[in-house]
Amino acid sequence: MAQYRAAIRIQLRKQILDVQGKTVENALHSLNFQDISHVHIGKYVELTVEAASKDAAFARVDDACKKLIANPVMEDFHIELQEA
Amino acid sequence: MAQYRAAIRIQLRKQILDVQGKTVENALHSLNFQDISHVHIGKYVELTVEAASKDAAFARVDDACKKLIANPVMEDFHIELQEA
Repeated sequence: MAQYRAAIRIQLRKQILDVQGKTVENALHSLNFQDISHVHIGKYVELTVEAASKDAAFARVDDACKKLIANPVMEDFHIELQEA
Repeated sequence: MAQYRAAIRIQLRKQILDVQGKTVENALHSLNFQDISHVHIGKYVELTVEAASKDAAFARVDDACKKLIANPVMEDFHIELQEA
């Protein structure tokens, strides 16, 4: 069994209004950051998984994301794995 | 002026207790994901910045993170830039 470190980026699906991102964008504009636009805010999760292979580790993390970490109806997630 | 897309990962500093990460880790364990550990939860922000160069774009995003997007006392942040 090897240990893998997973980095998971979770973002709202494109069709869903990102209210938090819009609010931060407005705040940035009033702080003189008019050169910043298209702000999207999501979650970033890091975790360690123990598995026999990288494929098995990916499958476990994917399953954990679908069952608990992300909301598959509203969010998209992207997993990056590295052997620890 | 060119446009750059920034991906910003924000995490609690190592010394600060990650209560949300610990809670998700406990929930994963009770869902039969005992092979997952060291869960840390942070934020992930994407934004577009208009600047004359990549260095100038980085400086603007770094400034925006310090002033509004991250909390430099409690959080570390990491910026990745790509020309859009």
